[in-house]
Amino acid sequence: MDLQAAINTTNQYLKNAFKNMTDEMQISIQNCSVCHQVCVQTMVHCIEKGGAHVAPEHLKQLIDCAEICSVSANFMTRNAELYPSVCRICADICESCATSCEQLGGNDDVLESCAEICRRCAESCQKMAVRH
Amino acid sequence: MDLQAAINTTNQYLKNAFKNMTDEMQISIQNCSVCHQVCVQTMVHCIEKGGAHVAPEHLKQLIDCAEICSVSANFMTRNAELYPSVCRICADICESCATSCEQLGGNDDVLESCAEICRRCAESCQKMAVRH
Amino acid sequence: MDLQAAINTTNQYLKNAFKNMTDEMQISIQNCSVCHQVCVQTMVHCIEKGGAHVAPEHLKQLIDCAEICSVSANFMTRNAELYPSVCRICADICESCATSCEQLGGNDDVLESCAEICRRCAESCQKMAVRH
Amino acid sequence: MDLQAAINTTNQYLKNAFKNMTDEMQISIQNCSVCHQVCVQTMVHCIEKGGAHVAPEHLKQLIDCAEICSVSANFMTRNAELYPSVCRICADICESCATSCEQLGGNDDVLESCAEICRRCAESCQKMAVRH
Repeated sequence: MDLQAAINTTNQYLKNAFKNMTDEMQISIQNCSVCHQVCVQTMVHCIEKGGAHVAPEHLKQLIDCAEICSVSANFMTRNAELYPSVCRICADICESCATSCEQLGGNDDVLESCAEICRRCAESCQKMAVRH
Repeated sequence: MDLQAAINTTNQYLKNAFKNMTDEMQISIQNCSVCHQVCVQTMVHCIEKGGAHVAPEHLKQLIDCAEICSVSANFMTRNAELYPSVCRICADICESCATSCEQLGGNDDVLESCAEICRRCAESCQKMAVRH
Repeated sequence: MDLQAAINTTNQYLKNAFKNMTDEMQISIQNCSVCHQVCVQTMVHCIEKGGAHVAPEHLKQLIDCAEICSVSANFMTRNAELYPSVCRICADICESCATSCEQLGGNDDVLESCAEICRRCAESCQKMAVRH
Repeated sequence: MDLQAAINTTNQYLKNAFKNMTDEMQISIQNCSVCHQVCVQTMVHCIEKGGAHVAPEHLKQLIDCAEICSVSANFMTRNAELYPSVCRICADICESCATSCEQLGGNDDVLESCAEICRRCAESCQKMAVRH
């Protein structure tokens, strides 16, 4: 099966499942879900690259960010009472992780890309945090 | 921000992060990720609907499926040594969950849609399981 | 093997692994870990019992509490930068979950016991949250 | 509060919650829960130590083991239909992780201790896998 076609199809399932949510909530869930996946992937990239990429503070940021993004997505998906509090922490951790990736990642596409999705996720989580 | 534009952008981050993977692996990760989210959402739907929707075996299927899909996606993303074994269990659990949703969900769009993504995820996970 | 002997042995592994932490941190991690397990077990109990036990707000509290306790334990175990923030949310969610279990659980030992460990976890997480 | 007294108390909550399970199941859940925590702690130890301790295959073993132990404990706690399959994978991954810790950890107490709880967890999970 063609990759783009498959992605389009699965996105349709997501839209159906989340059709009663605001667009902002859907975007934030999507950002958290993708940021989780990218952080997991980036962690493996850094572990395999070694050197400065395995600096303890950097790896720990990626681990924290991957974990909280997953939880933040789940709390929003369940419309959990305290999702705004989880989103606020998620925004803070994404910001820290983005900074860590930027400081390390001069010429490293993976880190630059991870920093970008972290910033994007921080921004949408911040909106979900202050709104409520 | 427009929802579709946001989804397209985040999908681009995923594609960048996973560019060294086969299309089949990427599709399987995407299916697991979306199946996880849809199962979490469906569980809340069933809990809020009550009645037959909160039958213990049904809710437990949704909980199991949500959890294993998340793990399966993570194992593939890390290219973990034993991801094929995790994918095999994930395929089995997705099949059971799909059947549970179908048996319950005559006129319930949410359950029908959940059954579909579970079948789709079972199929792609099965491919990742037998291949290795 | 005898259950109590097995538990004593595994506790010894925990103590070795966490020997550089303060007693308060170890107690908080232990409370979060046990509270997670008890909430998962209580959720299944409620699902199987049905009736008032599957009230949406109650089940959602148990799900939220199980998830955040697991994350809170992980953040403390990693000595993650923002563990105090995660502990603060964890304390709030444990309090809510305890109240939900108490209101429902007049004669139900499982719910009473869940409420107690939730209160205990809330208390130790609150200490980890304000300290930093 | 005294650490040992606190641990004894929380263990009592676990015993109450799991009183309808066989001793073997309770031991296996406890082993998975503790093995998860020890692997998370060991991963941080290795990241902070650097050098051979951050070899990609070693860190990936610890990450896989921490994740599957958590899931295995949850599946047993819920008495999930397919917990034996999850326990079988968990046993395999714990074995691999133990070997990785042993090969690396000549004089490193943390790694030796991690290897021991991994072996113990593998053994009890294997029992839960073949029994059903």
